[in-house]
Amino acid sequence: MVSGPSAVGKDTVLDALLSAAPSGHPLQKCVTATTRPPRPKEGGGMEQDGVDYHFVSPARFNAMVAQDALLEYAEYADNYYGTPRDWVAERRAQGVDVILKIEVQGGMIVKQKAADAVLVFLQPPSLEELERRLRRRRTDSDDQIAKRLLHARRELDYRSHYDYAVTNDAVPEAVEDIRAILRAEHCRIRRGGDG
Amino acid sequence: MVSGPSAVGKDTVLDALLSAAPSGHPLQKCVTATTRPPRPKEGGGMEQDGVDYHFVSPARFNAMVAQDALLEYAEYADNYYGTPRDWVAERRAQGVDVILKIEVQGGMIVKQKAADAVLVFLQPPSLEELERRLRRRRTDSDDQIAKRLLHARRELDYRSHYDYAVTNDAVPEAVEDIRAILRAEHCRIRRGGDG
Repeated sequence: MVSGPSAVGKDTVLDALLSAAPSGHPLQKCVTATTRPPRPKEGGGMEQDGVDYHFVSPARFNAMVAQDALLEYAEYADNYYGTPRDWVAERRAQGVDVILKIEVQGGMIVKQKAADAVLVFLQPPSLEELERRLRRRRTDSDDQIAKRLLHARRELDYRSHYDYAVTNDAVPEAVEDIRAILRAEHCRIRRGGDG
Repeated sequence: MVSGPSAVGKDTVLDALLSAAPSGHPLQKCVTATTRPPRPKEGGGMEQDGVDYHFVSPARFNAMVAQDALLEYAEYADNYYGTPRDWVAERRAQGVDVILKIEVQGGMIVKQKAADAVLVFLQPPSLEELERRLRRRRTDSDDQIAKRLLHARRELDYRSHYDYAVTNDAVPEAVEDIRAILRAEHCRIRRGGDG
């Protein structure tokens, strides 16, 4: 699971990670269900249903929650995001490492439900740099940026609950960090006592 | 710290690790103090004092123990091996990742003394393969090989106390595993509770 403040570069890093040459275990990004509408992608074009997200109505999302079809879900900026439980379980059973990009609070819940989940916190080099990235994106108003920065400060408080912190200063280095974490975790000896 | 049964290939893997291109933090192998005499190296030539080991007399080793100059020491096959405490501390202070190749029991002691130590257990694909490697080495008698195998069985019992298990099936893969572990550990968030 990769979490981190808005605009830290989660999509950029994960896209680079997934397009890098495979090393060992196959890797796939979880397609998250969301109630938010598709928006333009940084590289151009619009986000596609079933590829970037499962775009669902609030009513459909509500039904999925009622059917316990989501491993976790969280509200963020007036929209809901959830991880389809069956989708993840099927891939894990096939030996695929599933990458979840989820909000910070969602990460805490998945960690409780799935003891073998590995939590990576993607952090900006600094809050100042995060603000620059938010402004560069030009999708948010000043008020929205201020709210996102406040939110980011709170999210950084959760970092100590994560297993790893990766700084997204240079994307290739962040990608190599995550690849190393995946490889190392496959060697990791899990003990009963330490979660 | 890398531990593992005799003849699993610790020297081969660590030599390959240390000669690989650096990735981030500088890496250096700890030169262990030992009371055993130099022996021929697998690649030819003899082991050199100060390079492969610090070769010391039993009396000198005894004095080092008395002066608490060793981070740990252990007896193996009638010889003593110890980790020079100051040597390691100086390099760690310089930001160097120090690789310790130590016997299994020694690993347990270092872990108690140095909470940030990372324990890697290098394991053979099987005990049968380990026996083949011991015989290929042609330095031991049948009796010695039988004793080493018995010792290896007991060492494998300690594996669950380690942080990582790396299987030395193909050397380049084992090296990549250890490199990934080093890189991942630099991203690791350490919590008070889980040692």
